[in-house]
Amino acid sequence: MIYIESKDNNLFKYVKKLKERRFRDKEGLFILEGLRLVKEAIKANMEIKNIFISKSYEDKLVSEFNSTLLDNTIILNDNLFSQLASTENPQGVIAVVNKINNNKDEIGDFYLICDKVQDPGNLGTIIRTAHAAGVNGIILTKGTVDIYNDKTIRSTMGSIFYIPIIYEDNDFTFIKKLKSEGFSLITTSLQESKNFFEENLRGKVILAVGNEGNGISDELFDLADKKVKIPMPGDAESLNVAIAASIILFEKVRQGSCGEMNN
Amino acid sequence: MIYIESKDNNLFKYVKKLKERRFRDKEGLFILEGLRLVKEAIKANMEIKNIFISKSYEDKLVSEFNSTLLDNTIILNDNLFSQLASTENPQGVIAVVNKINNNKDEIGDFYLICDKVQDPGNLGTIIRTAHAAGVNGIILTKGTVDIYNDKTIRSTMGSIFYIPIIYEDNDFTFIKKLKSEGFSLITTSLQESKNFFEENLRGKVILAVGNEGNGISDELFDLADKKVKIPMPGDAESLNVAIAASIILFEKVRQGSCGEMNN
Repeated sequence: MIYIESKDNNLFKYVKKLKERRFRDKEGLFILEGLRLVKEAIKANMEIKNIFISKSYEDKLVSEFNSTLLDNTIILNDNLFSQLASTENPQGVIAVVNKINNNKDEIGDFYLICDKVQDPGNLGTIIRTAHAAGVNGIILTKGTVDIYNDKTIRSTMGSIFYIPIIYEDNDFTFIKKLKSEGFSLITTSLQESKNFFEENLRGKVILAVGNEGNGISDELFDLADKKVKIPMPGDAESLNVAIAASIILFEKVRQGSCGEMNN
Repeated sequence: MIYIESKDNNLFKYVKKLKERRFRDKEGLFILEGLRLVKEAIKANMEIKNIFISKSYEDKLVSEFNSTLLDNTIILNDNLFSQLASTENPQGVIAVVNKINNNKDEIGDFYLICDKVQDPGNLGTIIRTAHAAGVNGIILTKGTVDIYNDKTIRSTMGSIFYIPIIYEDNDFTFIKKLKSEGFSLITTSLQESKNFFEENLRGKVILAVGNEGNGISDELFDLADKKVKIPMPGDAESLNVAIAASIILFEKVRQGSCGEMNN
């Protein structure tokens, strides 16, 4: 077992820098916090580089990890540990993990685009919900918040380990490829007149939600095959983006379970 | 205009205590943060006791409020202001407001129960979404987080000012009254077999979502007329409670818009 007591330790300094997106991008690594997420990552066969345990959790947590992982387990004094953690109660354990490469070559029939979504918690909740709804992948446009942000990771509740993430380029190459293969791109909008449940969402579909303040960007809107709105009988001004995503994702689930169109 | 510079000022000390739920309950007041929410409260005719503006926002914000409100506007030095604020960027304005009394006597046909929901952000998002979906009221069981928690208020995005909130007692008196008037209580569950879209949600309906960890409590479950699940084709373990609420709320909106049952 390795013990780190000094803030000048190189590994400690290295991991601390992983709290910045730029360094995560450069190194291809990210930080996981909390026993549940770390266990979930092990179960999902993520490549774990190191596990850091807070000194006061040593007795309780070291036994949680099997002998293979113990070789990479490091005990940090509590003060250093709290400098790596982002939550108030990180449950004494953090893991440094290789970024996920779960892009699959095979193409399914159900994708979700997050277009410049800004809030880390919203993105994480969308990933969790899209996983539940059975999407084949989540497409992130340029300008979307980092999925390796600690709040995003936590909000996914582990779904991040299972769902393919596609980083779209400025030319929307991947989306255009899907469209050329028969996919319909269906965007949400406050303005458009057809309700989400009046549109046929069966078959090859890409659903899209946009930025919290501005909605779907003009460039993506131009590629849309259909635009739908979520009607609001109760006069609220708008819906949270993760809520809007969930409503249309599960409308596709519903339509897929039903024998025929209802409208 | 009144200026407060000292932390020993009685009004300042009084308002600071409103950050505690117990004191809010005793005084019947709560705190709103941010220009958008304060403006929304004015628009909704909330009874505003005082508006506090941070010294460095004085020039910019005092003109935002009309002469009536100016009588109750107080300028705080920035340090004192930050002690009242809960957000990192409170935009220089806080209001102290009388608790909302928007219980209506007339009974509609659409209610949502939040049964021991714990997370303030979840509760706020549920209130915002339920408002959009057109519910006639939200019923909170004992043990649910305070709606006047600052995070809850923020997450409602102002919907809190418009939607009736009913505090249920331990005997479920209000829910039983609705049931005696022909309402069906429909709870969500991971176990039950009928999908939410296979159940008739038309007419007088009370939907219910439960605690983040434990779901619907046994006592409420015993009162349920129907239990539905949200199917998860994608193998995620669970859905966030605000997401689950949204999916069933908007399934009722959908069914209400369609002419007949589909299944």
